[in-house]
Amino acid sequence: MYNNTLGDIFSVTSFGESHGPMVGCVIDGVPPGHKIDLTTIQTEVDMRKTAQTNFASERSEADLVQIVSGVYGDQTLGTPVAILIANADAKSADYDALQNVYRPSHADYTTMAKYGVRDHRGGGRSSIRITAPLVAAGEIARQLIVASYSSIEVRAWVNSIGAAVGNASIAHNLSQTEIYAKPFRVVDDTIVPQITTLVDNAKLEGDTLGGSITCIITNMKAGIGSPIFHKLQARLAQAMLSINTVKSFEFGSGAQASMLQGSMHNDAFVPAAEGISTVTNNSGGIQGGISNGMPIYFTIHFKPISSIKQAQSTVNTAGDALDISITGRHDVCAVPRAVAIVRAYTHIILYNELQAQHLVHS
Amino acid sequence: MYNNTLGDIFSVTSFGESHGPMVGCVIDGVPPGHKIDLTTIQTEVDMRKTAQTNFASERSEADLVQIVSGVYGDQTLGTPVAILIANADAKSADYDALQNVYRPSHADYTTMAKYGVRDHRGGGRSSIRITAPLVAAGEIARQLIVASYSSIEVRAWVNSIGAAVGNASIAHNLSQTEIYAKPFRVVDDTIVPQITTLVDNAKLEGDTLGGSITCIITNMKAGIGSPIFHKLQARLAQAMLSINTVKSFEFGSGAQASMLQGSMHNDAFVPAAEGISTVTNNSGGIQGGISNGMPIYFTIHFKPISSIKQAQSTVNTAGDALDISITGRHDVCAVPRAVAIVRAYTHIILYNELQAQHLVHS
Amino acid sequence: MYNNTLGDIFSVTSFGESHGPMVGCVIDGVPPGHKIDLTTIQTEVDMRKTAQTNFASERSEADLVQIVSGVYGDQTLGTPVAILIANADAKSADYDALQNVYRPSHADYTTMAKYGVRDHRGGGRSSIRITAPLVAAGEIARQLIVASYSSIEVRAWVNSIGAAVGNASIAHNLSQTEIYAKPFRVVDDTIVPQITTLVDNAKLEGDTLGGSITCIITNMKAGIGSPIFHKLQARLAQAMLSINTVKSFEFGSGAQASMLQGSMHNDAFVPAAEGISTVTNNSGGIQGGISNGMPIYFTIHFKPISSIKQAQSTVNTAGDALDISITGRHDVCAVPRAVAIVRAYTHIILYNELQAQHLVHS
Amino acid sequence: MYNNTLGDIFSVTSFGESHGPMVGCVIDGVPPGHKIDLTTIQTEVDMRKTAQTNFASERSEADLVQIVSGVYGDQTLGTPVAILIANADAKSADYDALQNVYRPSHADYTTMAKYGVRDHRGGGRSSIRITAPLVAAGEIARQLIVASYSSIEVRAWVNSIGAAVGNASIAHNLSQTEIYAKPFRVVDDTIVPQITTLVDNAKLEGDTLGGSITCIITNMKAGIGSPIFHKLQARLAQAMLSINTVKSFEFGSGAQASMLQGSMHNDAFVPAAEGISTVTNNSGGIQGGISNGMPIYFTIHFKPISSIKQAQSTVNTAGDALDISITGRHDVCAVPRAVAIVRAYTHIILYNELQAQHLVHS
Repeated sequence: MYNNTLGDIFSVTSFGESHGPMVGCVIDGVPPGHKIDLTTIQTEVDMRKTAQTNFASERSEADLVQIVSGVYGDQTLGTPVAILIANADAKSADYDALQNVYRPSHADYTTMAKYGVRDHRGGGRSSIRITAPLVAAGEIARQLIVASYSSIEVRAWVNSIGAAVGNASIAHNLSQTEIYAKPFRVVDDTIVPQITTLVDNAKLEGDTLGGSITCIITNMKAGIGSPIFHKLQARLAQAMLSINTVKSFEFGSGAQASMLQGSMHNDAFVPAAEGISTVTNNSGGIQGGISNGMPIYFTIHFKPISSIKQAQSTVNTAGDALDISITGRHDVCAVPRAVAIVRAYTHIILYNELQAQHLVHS
Repeated sequence: MYNNTLGDIFSVTSFGESHGPMVGCVIDGVPPGHKIDLTTIQTEVDMRKTAQTNFASERSEADLVQIVSGVYGDQTLGTPVAILIANADAKSADYDALQNVYRPSHADYTTMAKYGVRDHRGGGRSSIRITAPLVAAGEIARQLIVASYSSIEVRAWVNSIGAAVGNASIAHNLSQTEIYAKPFRVVDDTIVPQITTLVDNAKLEGDTLGGSITCIITNMKAGIGSPIFHKLQARLAQAMLSINTVKSFEFGSGAQASMLQGSMHNDAFVPAAEGISTVTNNSGGIQGGISNGMPIYFTIHFKPISSIKQAQSTVNTAGDALDISITGRHDVCAVPRAVAIVRAYTHIILYNELQAQHLVHS
Repeated sequence: MYNNTLGDIFSVTSFGESHGPMVGCVIDGVPPGHKIDLTTIQTEVDMRKTAQTNFASERSEADLVQIVSGVYGDQTLGTPVAILIANADAKSADYDALQNVYRPSHADYTTMAKYGVRDHRGGGRSSIRITAPLVAAGEIARQLIVASYSSIEVRAWVNSIGAAVGNASIAHNLSQTEIYAKPFRVVDDTIVPQITTLVDNAKLEGDTLGGSITCIITNMKAGIGSPIFHKLQARLAQAMLSINTVKSFEFGSGAQASMLQGSMHNDAFVPAAEGISTVTNNSGGIQGGISNGMPIYFTIHFKPISSIKQAQSTVNTAGDALDISITGRHDVCAVPRAVAIVRAYTHIILYNELQAQHLVHS
Repeated sequence: MYNNTLGDIFSVTSFGESHGPMVGCVIDGVPPGHKIDLTTIQTEVDMRKTAQTNFASERSEADLVQIVSGVYGDQTLGTPVAILIANADAKSADYDALQNVYRPSHADYTTMAKYGVRDHRGGGRSSIRITAPLVAAGEIARQLIVASYSSIEVRAWVNSIGAAVGNASIAHNLSQTEIYAKPFRVVDDTIVPQITTLVDNAKLEGDTLGGSITCIITNMKAGIGSPIFHKLQARLAQAMLSINTVKSFEFGSGAQASMLQGSMHNDAFVPAAEGISTVTNNSGGIQGGISNGMPIYFTIHFKPISSIKQAQSTVNTAGDALDISITGRHDVCAVPRAVAIVRAYTHIILYNELQAQHLVHS
């Protein structure tokens, strides 16, 4: 079961609702004796916060990360690490009018279909808010990766917003800090003006935008992953499709691979100083579910978020048709914020799989 | 762990290597008292077999399904169902020359990087051959779905091979049997001639082709899935990315969703006889990770298979560069065969999630 | 992995250290739409508290149960239920002298052997204090059992303290409330004077006492459990041996069964109004790992707790021999407090297995 | 779920019924590159076979172990190891008369209560026969322990049969091979004549006997196990209570510990060449759920087996009372055979926990 848990070795169990007293998670599988840097945890959690820029939601949360177990002094104990983040600025009254209405393309109806009951305030359990402590968990995973597998690095950025699509090349050298400082976290500066216009217009029209994120793992170790059901790409895909509004996952040459013939697509091996290397990297760093040491990269696409201010047809819990327009505090485009979530989930999966390898060579 | 297991309630544990004595799987979570129809199991397993048509591999396996536990008479006992399929036509000598060579874009190198040892014959554990008993498991899942949730139906077909891309509409009414009877299992007849040419040419050139498959689940129950990490799309994505050569997964409006604004993308709710309905189905039948009762559909893209007869640069296990051309018995395009695998994994995930719902309403 | 989790369907993940800010747990698998009664949760948690009587520890904790997710109004949402209990009266200074000493028969040394680091204050993660939120989880399980399987009842009591051993008969009709009101929670009143003397003497001598607890499940459903590794008795044994200081588990006729011949030990079946009944109940309500509907009963024995005021030989973290006497606030006998823990873990296992049965008949 | 699986890192999934074509198991988590010695696997499996001596069942099975995956040449591949053992000498006709009768203290009734259907032949899934491949799995675990943690040794022997109870001291130096060669696998020779008489009489009377087994793990590493729910003793208890007819588990000082005061029971630490040592070993080598490096020992008690030739009252599937006497081929006492099972399960748990430790120090 464990439907609220990501990972089986470094396993993160999520809890909390959008307008409950707090959101949080418990991490089992944190090895002992590692220093935990709370500052960078807070910094990364801040990267996914609302209200950072004019395109994001106006809910204003401090998102102060509190670690209440598993760390003594600044060292991990090997026991579960529990992370709490208070819900301070929830304005539940905003949702009174929505108590008996199913917002289109939201989880309202399906939550009722599954559970027969729901906390309608702020989307309850289905709110993106529950990812705040998960970003903290991802940053702990990152710190553990750095401690034990030093040079591996995960970077993610916005590749497109709406129809504004950046140059897909992954061959830039921006650090994640530099990416976070970019407008909309877009690496291709040339599309920023177009995005600005799109966002401004959408805001004006009470509309919303989707987009895409590319993530790359460099200096990767070879031999990580699993050959059958838990292929590295399968685990990454599961994690990515777990992020709200994500509609697709592709790695390496992605969907385009289907157009190429084997002789064009195959990555020729060449000798390398350490292990081997490939001339091209259509494999996206993964062959047969296992990393080959080349950069791993994947792209995910997000639909536009569903809370729009424009009037929409829908039904209420009594089954009657009606029109609604959603007024609360909502993002025009959540994709830039999602960069921190994509990195976090990638770090969690990656550390899980790196640790799993200790069971193989033993 | 359980890296060789798919599902946690209806859980299928795979074993076997391509050239070992047999491949098989053990299914835990088969409820008791259900009739098992061996005939349709064998039929479905035959659908993924090699040597069916001129575009597939020439390895000729009977793939006779043997169930050795969990079924007494023709009824399930509630105990684990073990399925065995003999490897009869393995020609291991074909692989003698490859013992010390890493075939480009195959799992040879990564298997060594992970395990330090491998059964090089026929790709060992990474062979698509291990999916034969998994197709049997999927057919058992289908039979159980029919028994308990009668009208749900899973159909899959080839949407493209190489550059020949069919009309993406999912609004056809072909049964799976009719689909299986189609050339290349393509629904859009208009692209068959183009595919035939592509396949003939690729064969002539010693080359291979990729493609894509679309899968649709109709008459779906609402309320199936989970809101956080085990979203229904996340589970499907993990399963699909577990299939050899799959490079992408998208559901509903897919990657294209990122281009649309919320007002265009949202699926307006309308009252329906049972529950509700949506005017459009960009959600692909899943909202917030949970089914809403509309058809679920997704598309996956496959790279061309890696065994090509053309000469390629590579390295051997000693790290020396060399050229190889792969001569054994290999498919030009595995995508039509993969239709049976896509269906099987979908049935497994679907039944797992349908059963999980019994824990919610109890 | 999930080493801090009990149960796989109703799964309780524990976190917290004795002297951290709080202890807690997250329960996944709580079905939606059930009323949760906080009052009886608090009452049951109070039953395992310190400082209730003169024989228990003087640490004085309010143990106020806070549920921070998964419950809206007084109803469960089907989402994870997180429970927090603050550590308010931790006197960490008491442990300064013990920072570099391994207390005999405590987990100090083994924690270092496993983790290489520990929170020495109050036993850290190995403290019985971490069971406080688990008792709350157990009471939630009990409420869910009552809601769905109404008449099943779990009662536990002290059967012996030190050499004072009560009449082993399980045929009394005391309710759990009545048991909790009994001195030392002993059902057999005749041994209370002897226990009082033993406790007074042990306290005087700076010594400690062990004992035993018997637990009975009445009005049990038949058909609950599993035939192989997860036999009902195996799950109960795992849970009971997870309680600090427990040294043994026996169910039904227990160890004594080994002395009897089959003709004496077998429980003859007789027809009953509903299902069947057995004349004797040496099986302890479980046959082949599955409940038969008769009362389930088991007994567990506890060693005396390890913190004694008397001087003891030990070694410090540098490996030097030394003498210590442990002065803090400690119980003379923890067995009466453990009654609440035994019930809680039994409720958790029982509800887990009852729920699992929904996957069988579906 | 995984109700048919023991272990989560070295995980053994069992399948098969007593009178189906075969029994078997699949082991996930076997590291690559280890030599597997089939000879000692077969030898150990033979140790649990029927028909070895005059006190055991007359069913005569070759129990030939076949490994069909995960091993190439004589080396493990890191992929799942599947083990098959044919059911050759099943005489199903013996069970025709029992098809509609519930044998007292057997799993017949509870299997029906759980599943509503059963394979009545030979006890179906509840037969001790399913342990044959599990003994093979245990021997593989032992070989892996020897390869990686060389000096650890698990020995088990019969401590009592019926009322004939051996001297409980664990301080003998007999090897397992020597133990297996002993009559009834009893270490204390002085009780052999008494046992012989008991067995002869029971056979004459159509009756059966129980007994007990003690198991000891020597040269154990410190730091193995887990502090909360997966305490080493909890895992061992779960495994032992999973063995048919086991009624109790106690480790170290066991149930007797409850009688002692802390000052008598505590194991004083003393400096040792490597780590530390304890003067006494009431802890049974485990403190706070984690091994301390001292010998681990535990004792389990078995009820007499339930198939007796004497007439017994019971009911049939229609609910009518009747008398039966069970005539097939059955053991008088299964305890000597169970020694191999106890060792196997102990090796599985032990290797699982030893491997788990790689995730801690990483």
